[in-house]
Amino acid sequence: MALPGEDALIQRLAAGLPPAWRTQLGIGDDAAAILEPDGSLLLITTDMLMEGVHFRLTWGDLPALGWKALAQNLSDIAAMGGIPTQAVIAIAVPPDMPADDVARIYQGLGALAGEAGVDIVGGDTIKSAGPLILAITVLGRAADGELLTRAGARPGEALFVTGALGRAAAGLRALESGLPIPDTLMPAVSAQLRPQPRLAAARALAVDGRVTAMMDLSDGVATDLHRLCRASGVGAIVEVAAVPVDPVVVATGVWLALHGIAVDNFTLALAGGEDFELLLTAPADAEDALRAAIAPLPLTRIGAITPGEAVLLREDDRLRPLEYGFTHF
Amino acid sequence: MALPGEDALIQRLAAGLPPAWRTQLGIGDDAAAILEPDGSLLLITTDMLMEGVHFRLTWGDLPALGWKALAQNLSDIAAMGGIPTQAVIAIAVPPDMPADDVARIYQGLGALAGEAGVDIVGGDTIKSAGPLILAITVLGRAADGELLTRAGARPGEALFVTGALGRAAAGLRALESGLPIPDTLMPAVSAQLRPQPRLAAARALAVDGRVTAMMDLSDGVATDLHRLCRASGVGAIVEVAAVPVDPVVVATGVWLALHGIAVDNFTLALAGGEDFELLLTAPADAEDALRAAIAPLPLTRIGAITPGEAVLLREDDRLRPLEYGFTHF
Repeated sequence: MALPGEDALIQRLAAGLPPAWRTQLGIGDDAAAILEPDGSLLLITTDMLMEGVHFRLTWGDLPALGWKALAQNLSDIAAMGGIPTQAVIAIAVPPDMPADDVARIYQGLGALAGEAGVDIVGGDTIKSAGPLILAITVLGRAADGELLTRAGARPGEALFVTGALGRAAAGLRALESGLPIPDTLMPAVSAQLRPQPRLAAARALAVDGRVTAMMDLSDGVATDLHRLCRASGVGAIVEVAAVPVDPVVVATGVWLALHGIAVDNFTLALAGGEDFELLLTAPADAEDALRAAIAPLPLTRIGAITPGEAVLLREDDRLRPLEYGFTHF
Repeated sequence: MALPGEDALIQRLAAGLPPAWRTQLGIGDDAAAILEPDGSLLLITTDMLMEGVHFRLTWGDLPALGWKALAQNLSDIAAMGGIPTQAVIAIAVPPDMPADDVARIYQGLGALAGEAGVDIVGGDTIKSAGPLILAITVLGRAADGELLTRAGARPGEALFVTGALGRAAAGLRALESGLPIPDTLMPAVSAQLRPQPRLAAARALAVDGRVTAMMDLSDGVATDLHRLCRASGVGAIVEVAAVPVDPVVVATGVWLALHGIAVDNFTLALAGGEDFELLLTAPADAEDALRAAIAPLPLTRIGAITPGEAVLLREDDRLRPLEYGFTHF
């Protein structure tokens, strides 16, 4: 979850810092890229998660918390076309949390790190004055020609997403309901608690060479597409009918409605966030090859890049603005 | 400030993680070292600071807070013999903190980053559920032969510290008193609020080639010497009369006593922490050359490395144990 006004604040803070003379790509993308003496790129990204803001300890198992905290950083490295290699973990432990619980958080961190081939090389362990906090920094590597930023989209190109959207947000709503959740909706809960960063797909897309811009969907298309368009100096049109809403989102919506809780599937898919799918642009004729490169993970063309700066939705041939971070369809 | 039992917890957490197959030196030193394809070493360290645990916003100016948060990470890189090169900053902003105040924290970060030649390349900005939190990760570089760990001390070598000790702890006591602090004690307050990491001295010591082990004094000799001895598999004897207590510590003690507050200078110097001076070992005959290398910063021989594992204090020819993290002399 971003700080309200986060983008503006980051711009202001960055403007006050000394110029980054060694850095290929600094503040404002999924990760920073540092040019190494051998011509390769060192990637670095950091994320902080706080109890009460990004998660509640009552919801999930502690290993899942460690998993998710690392997953969102790995997703940032993947979205640059990189391979995550090392991580450091800073954790603030609440006064009443037993060491066993801390160890369980690390079980989840270690499980994903092991799957992803990432070394956890260090960290900091402090006592917290209150909430549990995890701050994770991940390093990655990329070949110079394979770096994918948010800034390469050009008018006329197609706009794609991987996977299907809205699962993590649907899982969040299900958890927030406090109701016993049926097994059929567990894929949504898993997407919320234990997301799978698209490491292999992102690498395949980077290696292909035809993707022009890429980022991960941490805050949802409604926010992240604006960021991509601003970085690239372009606009976009999203075809509402093309947006891949995950079936489990629909199922969760039906179940919540039966319990008197109204949710809008399309809002969850476009604005829910935390899906950690990839948002990318490429020439339209690359579609088949890119789809084949990441199969069986779906690749869906959801729209097109346009000149100008307007970010629009098209539904039944009517165009209207996609509001930045819109929360209701 | 370390979590009580931090060392044991870190050992336990590290034991549960997958093996770090690319990493030259992992969890347990001031920074981790990653062997790069060109044979150089990439260093990485992370620290988290929380309001109410590591600082109070009422004490100091906000730029000083940013400065100190970065300084302690730079000190970790320096203590490995490295050159800090890049940093990422994660910050959790309390609900009531204006953007101007966040920008002032970044002024301090930027000022030290500029002095040290470190690029701030990215970060994460989140809203906090409560306290202000800063989590900083710093990257650094070292030549393979110049890496200094905690593990190289050998029996018979001399034990040294740079600078004079106890200033930061004396400054903390002065701030905690809530009294108006006289100008003559400001060096102690500055040491607490705006510490100077020993970047140039650490590099000079690493380049000399005769230092066998080094770390920074973040928690004080009474804690950090135990860590160095454990990592090296040695013991040590500290000569009480040789410990360089900063004159401003003595002055602060006198002033506090006049206001009815008792402090022990030697306790501040050995156990106060946050001085960010360097603790190092080397053959005794290297003393003159090492002193010359870091002049005008003082280098003081405070003891010797011994076989076994006992960490002892010698005063008036009597030996007694230096208790781990002792808080009263």
